[in-house]
Order: sequence, then C-alpha cells, then structure tokens
Amino acid sequence: MTATLVIGPYSDTDLDALEKTFKPVAIADPSGIAGLEKSTRAAIAAVAFKGHLHFGGSEMDLLPNLGMIANYGVGYDAIDVAAASARGVKVTNTPDVLNDDVADIAVAMLFMQGREMEHASRWARSGQWKEKGEYRLNRKISGGKAGIVGLGRIGREIADRLAAFKMDIHYFARSEKDTPGWTYHADPVSLARAVDYLVVALVGGKETEKFVSAKVIDALGPLGIVVNISRGSTVDEAALLNALEQGRIAGAGLDVFLNEPDIDARFYALDNVVIQPHQGSGTVETRAAMGQLQRDNVSAFHAGDALLTPVN
Amino acid sequence: MTATLVIGPYSDTDLDALEKTFKPVAIADPSGIAGLEKSTRAAIAAVAFKGHLHFGGSEMDLLPNLGMIANYGVGYDAIDVAAASARGVKVTNTPDVLNDDVADIAVAMLFMQGREMEHASRWARSGQWKEKGEYRLNRKISGGKAGIVGLGRIGREIADRLAAFKMDIHYFARSEKDTPGWTYHADPVSLARAVDYLVVALVGGKETEKFVSAKVIDALGPLGIVVNISRGSTVDEAALLNALEQGRIAGAGLDVFLNEPDIDARFYALDNVVIQPHQGSGTVETRAAMGQLQRDNVSAFHAGDALLTPVN
Repeated sequence: MTATLVIGPYSDTDLDALEKTFKPVAIADPSGIAGLEKSTRAAIAAVAFKGHLHFGGSEMDLLPNLGMIANYGVGYDAIDVAAASARGVKVTNTPDVLNDDVADIAVAMLFMQGREMEHASRWARSGQWKEKGEYRLNRKISGGKAGIVGLGRIGREIADRLAAFKMDIHYFARSEKDTPGWTYHADPVSLARAVDYLVVALVGGKETEKFVSAKVIDALGPLGIVVNISRGSTVDEAALLNALEQGRIAGAGLDVFLNEPDIDARFYALDNVVIQPHQGSGTVETRAAMGQLQRDNVSAFHAGDALLTPVN
Repeated sequence: MTATLVIGPYSDTDLDALEKTFKPVAIADPSGIAGLEKSTRAAIAAVAFKGHLHFGGSEMDLLPNLGMIANYGVGYDAIDVAAASARGVKVTNTPDVLNDDVADIAVAMLFMQGREMEHASRWARSGQWKEKGEYRLNRKISGGKAGIVGLGRIGREIADRLAAFKMDIHYFARSEKDTPGWTYHADPVSLARAVDYLVVALVGGKETEKFVSAKVIDALGPLGIVVNISRGSTVDEAALLNALEQGRIAGAGLDVFLNEPDIDARFYALDNVVIQPHQGSGTVETRAAMGQLQRDNVSAFHAGDALLTPVN
C-alpha cells in the first residue's frame, strides 16, 4: 500500500528520488486522479505536486484521506489553497532555494534585451559585423531607474543585484519595506512612471491577475523594458503585445507567459523580446534543492513532524 | 589652416562635433597620413584618433609639429606610446566613462552563456518549447567562484557587480589590492584553477599578449566559462577555440576578438560562445561621453591647458 501520489512532469532524477523514498503512485497531471482505483485513492495521504495545471477542490475530494500537498516550486497558484484549507489539507512549497537563479535570469534578461545582445549576436554571426563594421548603438542600462513590482524574497534579490549596477531602485509592494535609499510606490502606475525598467516579481494567482495593466505599461514609456519572471498571468499580455508591436515600449525580457509552453505566437514575430522557456529555476543545483525540499516536506508529513515550508 | 587631424571611423554625431569644434582634416585610418599635402601635415598639432589600426612612429614622423594624440577609447594599444613619448607627443585616452557599460556586458555575457539564454531563446522560438515542454537544465552561476584577470577600473566594476550575485571573487593583478574578502592570485594559472568563471579585463598591447594562455584555459576545467571584454590579443585565441571545440571548457562570452570584425570563422560554428560585436561601450550615452572627453583633451591641448586624461 502506498500513501503518496506523485503528480507532474518530473525529471528522471527527481522521479527516481521520489520513487525510492515513497514508492508512490505516479500520474502525469491532476486529471489522472479520477482514473485511479477507489482503494488506491483512499490510501493517498500526501501528494507531491508539480506543474501548472489546476489542482482544485474537486480533485482533492477524490482523495478522502488527503492530508497534504507538497508543491514543487515557490509559486503554488495552480493549487486551490482555500479549498485545501477548507478540507484540512496542508500545502507546502519550495521557497528560497530558487531565489538566486530566478533573480539571475531576471537581471540577465534586462541587459540582454536592453543592450540588444541577442540581436547583436545574430548580426555578428550572420556576417554583418564583418561586412559593415560597427554595430548600432543601444542604450545605457546601469545607473538607470529600475522598478521592482513585488518586493518579496525574489524581488529583493533582483533589487540587490541591480543596486550593484548603480541603479536607482524603486518598488511597489503591499506595504513600505525597510529599504534605505529605495523609493516606495503604493501604486504601480506611479512606479512605472518613475522608472525605465519594470521587473515583475509578484506571486501568481487571481489576486495579481493583470496587475501590470495596460495603464502601467503605458506609464513606462518608449525607453521602457518589462521583465517578468513571476507568472504570465501577472501582466496584461494583450496590452504588452500591443505595446511591443507598436514600439510604445522598447522591449521585454520574459521567462513566463500565458498558456506555456504553447505561448501566443505574436511573441515569436517580435525581435524586441527576449523569450526564455520558463527556465528561471532551471539549474541542476536548484532543481535538486527544490526536489529535496519537496520530498522533505512529504517525509515530515508522513512522520508526523512539523512541515518545513507550509503555506497554509 | 587647420591644426587638428581626425583619424578613424566615427559616428555621424561624433564627426559633426569634431568638425564644428576643430574644422579638422579627416581621414579614415593612419595609412592616409602619407597621402596628405606636406603643408597640411606640417600644420597638424593634434590628432583625434579612433580605431584599432596601428599608429606608430613612422606615421608620427609624417607630422613634424605633432604634439598630442587623443585616443577615443580607454584602450590605446593601437598607438605606439613609447614612440610618442620619444617624440615629445602626449597621448590621452577616455577612461572611466565607459567602465559601467563594459562591465554590464561582461556580466550579462557570463549569465547569457552560463544559463544558455541564447540557446534557450532559439529553442523556444523554433517551436521546441511548445513541442517538448521543459528546457534542459543548465548550471547555477550565482554563488559560484569568479576570477577577474586584471583588477583595474573595469575589472573592479565587474567584480563589484558579481559580488552582488554572491560570487566568491578571486583576481589576478600585478600587485595585491585592498579588497577585503577577495582572494589575490599572483599567477593566472592558480587563479583559473580556483574558479569556474574567468573574466578578462586586462589592458591590451604587447605585454599582455596571450596572457590567458593554453595553460590558464586548461586550468579552468570543464564547467569553466571565459569572458573577455578587453582585447582579443589578451587570450590565446587558438587555445580557446580548441578548448571550446573539444568541450574542455563549457563556454565563452566574447566581446573582443583578433582581427575584428573579420574574426576567426571557427567561432561561428560554436554554439557555446556568446559572440558580441565589440559593443561593450556601444551605448548612445557612453559614446557621447567618450567623444566629449576626446574633444576636451584636444581643446585643452590647443589652449595650452593641462590634459584631462594623459597616459604618458
């Protein structure tokens, strides 16, 4: 009899570790729960969850003895936490271990887009450097004004890095933080108006949907660059696409999109966007740490110990 | 009568400013000096120089009243400074104003290569993200060990930025600097052995030719990344190409090459190299500041004032 259900697209390494540790039942996504035998479902006490497909109350109700869901990732917007809480189900995530990698990608996308590094690379490789000599000038990024939307753990890591590039740091958060020298904005439009670079580090979920609205994007202006490493949902993607296509902002660096991996094809036609395939936390080291933390949460639950990183 | 000779491939903005300020004679490169009338040559007291083609003693001897050469750029390795000094010719450059942009490109190339961002972008744009789901994992960069080869002004800017990525900073310089927490190596092989990422920020010229030798590159190891924003000459390029082709190091991020812009075609066949067309200082803001500093040096010379940024 197994007590753990594994859901999601894991790497071989992670799946091996899960299998060794828990001898679980494994399925590809939450829709597979309904296809399990009733006795199998009744035995499940913990779910190790990975992915962006919805895991809601109706799925939880198919698992009458479920006590916890351990999410792989810091963002747990795919899981209906309110529904879990209502059923006495604890949810955990994997915070902190991925902060550095995600912040690295955010900062690198800002410079890669702002300094046209991908375009310059293609230009050189296509023989145009040899033929034409100097590459066109772009804009200086360091020393400029950066706005962080959401100053949680990852947002702060991004701001700390950008500060080393002598950037003037502005931020939006639900409340002002203890950040000497950084400028707080209670309103994202005011933030966008004050800066050239907007880095979105919000949590996902309903509450932050389209938080970076058409109005915010318009306030950024023609030298503006939007960087998003949070969730595609946090930005009004239609408004962003329009602004990019019409040159109303300079560019974007995006690791997250709506409907990943089948993202809006309009992005592919743009050469003022750095497109990353949601690889912010995608390093060997960090994914190993995330998998370990997920498994440690499941083990703690089975052992009756305190969960390491509960979210409810 | 004009007293200023302008040499090099300037932008229209810079050329306009030079013409307005000095009403100069302008030629494309040092080989054009011999083609000028003797009386024109005799009138030249100052040269505003840009480019990487050699400006040596024999060119200077064609300008009997030459008193100064104002280089556009911090690196003045194209100018034979010893020959200039021997003739009583002062040389100036444009330091500091470009430090930030060059350091930005160095750091961005490290992450762009290490996190495979260019490859990941192509992979996503080619439809493979949609088709295959997750991108392959790469390696964590932040928190790692970085070695700066040459801790001058630009090297220090690079190190300060990398420190914000929680990197353990090692460096080579001619002498140990006052850098608490950073590790000094008197020998570049020892430096390379201690780190995974080697960022080359040496001055150019004969003395640093192939300073990053085959031995240094070998000492870096298979996770190693070489970043160069200095001059192509500072790295043993043949050894670097061999190591990259054979996978003996992980990759490189290069803004400078031998024989720019007609660089070794073997680079184009490699997808573990970020190729930038020597655009480190290539922003509107920084090039304007470089042009201004060059002109200010020429003006100071004509006025008999102290030069702003002399190098001899």
